[in-house]
Amino acid sequence: MPIADVPGYHAVRDHTEALARPLSAEDQVVQSMPDCSPTKWHRGHTTWFFEEFVLDRWAPGYERFHPKYQFLFNSYYEAVGARQPRPRRGMITRPSIDDVAAYRSAVDAAMDSVLTQSRDPDLVALVELGLNHEQQHQELLLMDIKHLLSLNPLRPAYRESSGASGAATPKPAGFVAHGGGLVEIGHNGHGFGFDNEGPRHSVYLEPFALADRLVTSGEWLEFMQDGGYERTDLWLSDGWAHINAEGWNAPLYWEQVNGTWQVFTLNGLAPVDPAAPVVHVSYYEADAFARWSGARLPTEAEWEVTARPAEAGPTAPGLHPRALVQDVAEGETSQWFGEVWQWTSSPYTPYPGFRVAPGAVGEYNGKFMVDQQVLRGSAAITPAGHARTTYRNFFTTKSRWAYSGVRLARDV
Amino acid sequence: MPIADVPGYHAVRDHTEALARPLSAEDQVVQSMPDCSPTKWHRGHTTWFFEEFVLDRWAPGYERFHPKYQFLFNSYYEAVGARQPRPRRGMITRPSIDDVAAYRSAVDAAMDSVLTQSRDPDLVALVELGLNHEQQHQELLLMDIKHLLSLNPLRPAYRESSGASGAATPKPAGFVAHGGGLVEIGHNGHGFGFDNEGPRHSVYLEPFALADRLVTSGEWLEFMQDGGYERTDLWLSDGWAHINAEGWNAPLYWEQVNGTWQVFTLNGLAPVDPAAPVVHVSYYEADAFARWSGARLPTEAEWEVTARPAEAGPTAPGLHPRALVQDVAEGETSQWFGEVWQWTSSPYTPYPGFRVAPGAVGEYNGKFMVDQQVLRGSAAITPAGHARTTYRNFFTTKSRWAYSGVRLARDV
Amino acid sequence: MPIADVPGYHAVRDHTEALARPLSAEDQVVQSMPDCSPTKWHRGHTTWFFEEFVLDRWAPGYERFHPKYQFLFNSYYEAVGARQPRPRRGMITRPSIDDVAAYRSAVDAAMDSVLTQSRDPDLVALVELGLNHEQQHQELLLMDIKHLLSLNPLRPAYRESSGASGAATPKPAGFVAHGGGLVEIGHNGHGFGFDNEGPRHSVYLEPFALADRLVTSGEWLEFMQDGGYERTDLWLSDGWAHINAEGWNAPLYWEQVNGTWQVFTLNGLAPVDPAAPVVHVSYYEADAFARWSGARLPTEAEWEVTARPAEAGPTAPGLHPRALVQDVAEGETSQWFGEVWQWTSSPYTPYPGFRVAPGAVGEYNGKFMVDQQVLRGSAAITPAGHARTTYRNFFTTKSRWAYSGVRLARDV
Amino acid sequence: MPIADVPGYHAVRDHTEALARPLSAEDQVVQSMPDCSPTKWHRGHTTWFFEEFVLDRWAPGYERFHPKYQFLFNSYYEAVGARQPRPRRGMITRPSIDDVAAYRSAVDAAMDSVLTQSRDPDLVALVELGLNHEQQHQELLLMDIKHLLSLNPLRPAYRESSGASGAATPKPAGFVAHGGGLVEIGHNGHGFGFDNEGPRHSVYLEPFALADRLVTSGEWLEFMQDGGYERTDLWLSDGWAHINAEGWNAPLYWEQVNGTWQVFTLNGLAPVDPAAPVVHVSYYEADAFARWSGARLPTEAEWEVTARPAEAGPTAPGLHPRALVQDVAEGETSQWFGEVWQWTSSPYTPYPGFRVAPGAVGEYNGKFMVDQQVLRGSAAITPAGHARTTYRNFFTTKSRWAYSGVRLARDV
Repeated sequence: MPIADVPGYHAVRDHTEALARPLSAEDQVVQSMPDCSPTKWHRGHTTWFFEEFVLDRWAPGYERFHPKYQFLFNSYYEAVGARQPRPRRGMITRPSIDDVAAYRSAVDAAMDSVLTQSRDPDLVALVELGLNHEQQHQELLLMDIKHLLSLNPLRPAYRESSGASGAATPKPAGFVAHGGGLVEIGHNGHGFGFDNEGPRHSVYLEPFALADRLVTSGEWLEFMQDGGYERTDLWLSDGWAHINAEGWNAPLYWEQVNGTWQVFTLNGLAPVDPAAPVVHVSYYEADAFARWSGARLPTEAEWEVTARPAEAGPTAPGLHPRALVQDVAEGETSQWFGEVWQWTSSPYTPYPGFRVAPGAVGEYNGKFMVDQQVLRGSAAITPAGHARTTYRNFFTTKSRWAYSGVRLARDV
Repeated sequence: MPIADVPGYHAVRDHTEALARPLSAEDQVVQSMPDCSPTKWHRGHTTWFFEEFVLDRWAPGYERFHPKYQFLFNSYYEAVGARQPRPRRGMITRPSIDDVAAYRSAVDAAMDSVLTQSRDPDLVALVELGLNHEQQHQELLLMDIKHLLSLNPLRPAYRESSGASGAATPKPAGFVAHGGGLVEIGHNGHGFGFDNEGPRHSVYLEPFALADRLVTSGEWLEFMQDGGYERTDLWLSDGWAHINAEGWNAPLYWEQVNGTWQVFTLNGLAPVDPAAPVVHVSYYEADAFARWSGARLPTEAEWEVTARPAEAGPTAPGLHPRALVQDVAEGETSQWFGEVWQWTSSPYTPYPGFRVAPGAVGEYNGKFMVDQQVLRGSAAITPAGHARTTYRNFFTTKSRWAYSGVRLARDV
Repeated sequence: MPIADVPGYHAVRDHTEALARPLSAEDQVVQSMPDCSPTKWHRGHTTWFFEEFVLDRWAPGYERFHPKYQFLFNSYYEAVGARQPRPRRGMITRPSIDDVAAYRSAVDAAMDSVLTQSRDPDLVALVELGLNHEQQHQELLLMDIKHLLSLNPLRPAYRESSGASGAATPKPAGFVAHGGGLVEIGHNGHGFGFDNEGPRHSVYLEPFALADRLVTSGEWLEFMQDGGYERTDLWLSDGWAHINAEGWNAPLYWEQVNGTWQVFTLNGLAPVDPAAPVVHVSYYEADAFARWSGARLPTEAEWEVTARPAEAGPTAPGLHPRALVQDVAEGETSQWFGEVWQWTSSPYTPYPGFRVAPGAVGEYNGKFMVDQQVLRGSAAITPAGHARTTYRNFFTTKSRWAYSGVRLARDV
Repeated sequence: MPIADVPGYHAVRDHTEALARPLSAEDQVVQSMPDCSPTKWHRGHTTWFFEEFVLDRWAPGYERFHPKYQFLFNSYYEAVGARQPRPRRGMITRPSIDDVAAYRSAVDAAMDSVLTQSRDPDLVALVELGLNHEQQHQELLLMDIKHLLSLNPLRPAYRESSGASGAATPKPAGFVAHGGGLVEIGHNGHGFGFDNEGPRHSVYLEPFALADRLVTSGEWLEFMQDGGYERTDLWLSDGWAHINAEGWNAPLYWEQVNGTWQVFTLNGLAPVDPAAPVVHVSYYEADAFARWSGARLPTEAEWEVTARPAEAGPTAPGLHPRALVQDVAEGETSQWFGEVWQWTSSPYTPYPGFRVAPGAVGEYNGKFMVDQQVLRGSAAITPAGHARTTYRNFFTTKSRWAYSGVRLARDV
């Protein structure tokens, strides 16, 4: 059955709807800042992707669900025409959430029809890209709804807490060393990867060491209590100007309630858990914290070669050239994935030999490769398939609404 | 029955809900610009007014419906505490539209109880103020929802057209003269009036004449075709800077579709009707149009003394000192009320002897008396009871989303 | 001698140069904010006025001193072509101050030639306007240079103090009453007046009283100590927003040095003199102070009819209709002129029957008649001929760099 | 003679004064945009550097020339106290240019005295840093004065043209290849280098080729004529947004005069010379041009290893490991230095092992290492000693007032 070539089409599509389900119509329409998009828009945009890049080509005679949806739900693909300006995505009170649900169903039905008729590799690759794209928007949807709900004085929860208690007290942080030398990083072409993950290429590293766990909220409190946000010498020049202009003195979503630090989460307001990884800090803050710690942030290559054994596990021995990862004390490091994205000191640039794909799909990653920093790992809200050592997430130095945290590095 | 003292409590309250009824939950939550408020907020705010100013004092033991609603639904009353910042009213996705409906019902029930137990004149005056306040918000609600829907590329209608055809071709405009002299303007204390409508006082006028009808969209098209938006000499200095910065070249809501001018209305997009009064122009534009016409805008006193006979009609001879209105050709003028608000050349200032009422209610009008212009008359969307000759509406010179139009004046 | 028709041509022109003389080339070129202009620009612009409006017409064969000076030194006269954008006047490092001196000399020589050949009334009127225009810029020059020097951490003095000691302790403020009624205000056509001072016309006033002296800095300190800048209830809504956005908590140029209030003056930094009239306050602050005092600001008509006897003195009995000024206790009021401009509650609007003059000269006043407030009186830096009861100065509500102070008024 | 240890102290200091000499007092005081500084400020700031970092420590009993100059002339060294805000450097009309000359003389005299008494290596190193710092400001001085003069409608020349005619028509551009592999870049510790040029370290390169000359203005005109500024697909997303917001359609300083492109230079306005290297383009424009050319920008490592033979010449065989530069056709490349700075695709980040020096001097480079791009080479206005292969200049992606141009690169 051809559909087997793109396992998970319905799983991915249904998961988006499941994420939206706890949200009211009002929750789904509002845009809380230009960087964020409404839930309804995420639902429409991920659907439009299939209409634009798959159905138009692979479903002969397919008629667009609505003549204006291309305009409404295009994000930034200049090559496919005009679109709703990003800061005005929150004005789209219509189509309604039900209209968008109908749009999703119609496109899914057409996709089913296409996928039962063809197993063309180009088609399968586009569908795979569309599903990975949708998963990225699943994470954005949660980031964005958290930001919106945080601005409501009622501090409403997205969902009721699962009752999970706090994180266990972490062991003292240690550093695991790597001898450096010539290493390879980047996607090797097996399995899905975004264009920006390749080409795989060599990088020469000096010896270094990475922390074996993430920085915790408790450690961040120490930084704050030590005047971290008031000491100029800890900050990049731009960072110092920015935190003073914005009045930042703690991570995003932290607020003092009756003298104790609380943090807004998808489960509502909760006390800051000192054992949990700190999250929602900007690059500026991560960099200042590292300087305060007498450490630095890792480069993305350092991160990748150190994380690789952790990802591979004992069952994937051939995945990485062990000889290059001599000094990593395997098994001792932790929290690479599924906790928080980890700022690296690497600006987001194309890998040597990177080529933008032709056509509109090629606008996916390349045109954002300036003035952003790479983050590695994955967050608690990241869809499972997006946790891999070669994955390159990226945000501007000022961004805090992503689930961004800190792992320290050192020269050795 | 005491309730008879405040006739229309339920009529006014129900009308607000009727206005909201065609709107989806999404439509009711979004704020399209800082000057506008979401429908849901209007519904909540007008309800809070009764809670804050009536129930707290007149309903012993009344408990607030929700501890945070005072914060959410206060508009600008500094004296009663902190409040949601105006530009963030659109972030309040919760309470839901149903929660707000429940809030309205609970307050109405409490109000019923209060009003069946007391006819204290202070109570009655406050309720009357609250109802007039709510009627002002009914007009704002329609202004605001029109602005929001206009930003949607789908150009959705608020309601289906009633099928009414266009306005009849107007007769050529004439001017009716007034001999000037000492006249009285302002509210005389009979019936309800806002504080800013009084005290009644004398004003000395030079002879003048007012147009006997409003400026039409057809005449505005002539102004545009004659280069009205490109001729510096027609504009106030601030106005010229503003239209160039904003790129204005037509009234708000006008857009060219395939070479013809269309206008967005509450019924959706429609051709510009040359016979209808022009609407949604700023003070700057009204002033420039008047200069282009070889005329000027009326002062609010000129407007009031000329409109008075029109308002009064033949059955209310004693309402206005006829001797002072010698030269008005009675019955020849038209369109004073129920069409569009009419910009006057009068800045919004306190009348001689104006005193702000003590307490929070006193924040109603006085603190806005600077850098705004008075508009007179009323619009098609204005609640009936708000059409009176002494009524002073006011907006900044840059505002266009009110139903603002133009009546010309001349020296004689 | 025709030149006798325009007495003071050289006196006025030379006075401008005398005002510039204490200033270095650097002082004369910098623009400290968009509202201000460099000294060199004032010197050039006032000269260009004669070139543009007089020499072009009255000096046959006159050649412009420099082909670009029209562009550089036009201020806002749209009708005579393009011009240097106002916020970029400070970029004109060339022509040098010597070039500008040569420009002034050349134009003066040409003017001398014209004025010895003709006594045409149109010519004389234009020259008179040009001289009054230049005198206005003399005051602006001092306002602007004070603002510039105040931003220099060295707090340099424009000139050494004349050694004058502080003001004498003022007597307690009293109020002198006026019975109101129909009064005439505005320029009567005898002697020079700007277009905006007429036409003379009737105004009806309610009874009122005006303070017999100006508000002092000592009284302003009481206002500050009583929390005047922290009490919302004292402020217009726009004013409250503005002082909080700007962080205003004292008049412009006040600063605390070692716990005492100092004020920057044209003589350098000096202690605040509690006996001197307060100066450099915005309309918002003047209005808030008046409310705090249980008083209000005067209208311009109230101010004019009360000040008139003071101006006229016993030797000019016919100038004002004494019958209309019944209740003024003549001789008891003071400080109408030569101290500080006095904010009135009157927005700057055209008088009834005001007509803009044809041509570019007509851009003088009319196109600024919106969103500004009238100030009356004159300041210590105002050229003598500009102190008259009908003179209408005007600034926006936010402006503080003019010599603006406060006289209180009350209803009676 | 100890002074021999810091050859060129007076030569460097005098050169700064020579650069300022053609400028009037007015020219020297104005700040044309926040990124720029007035000439007078450059002269004072470079002097303050010696006072702050040398005289305070090495000249016992030295008294500061003026108590406020530390405040006025500190640039961004947070560690040494408060300072004049950068956007207000243009307000400092006093001290005068003569005062600043006196300041320079006094500090030079004190420096002479110190340098005749000590040859302490720390002292010599600080003086060397101070001189290199001053040379950087010599280039900035010219960049900044060019920007200022360009805003003057008179388009005044900084100096008269030396009469040099246009550049010779360049040969067609070729590419010289490099085989890639492991190379070393960075300063090797011999001779002066800024902290950011080291440590020297290994980098692994894929094979590549660099253009053997710079992009010319003639080629840029072709790009413009081919719609380069209108084709979205050529631009980074941020770049596209920026050029549209700013209305850029040509390099900075280009303007159309009667249908032909002119360019403002330090010699005044001149026709665009198609043979000369294009200059004053932003990173966004350089990147778009490269994409249009089917090429890309070089990385800084690619640039450095290719330029090294050009720098070294035949007399310095040991300076670079020839084995690593296999494929460069030596002698065929040109224009590495003394023409224009060349944008690289490398963001400005610390080299592996980079450490900020302790104390205020350490603020020199490190704290700017984010959100900027590296430029390599040197410009026609760059002091001679600043042309070396390891030199890292840096500007933001939006900057155009530096002498920034383009050399293309390709994968092979």
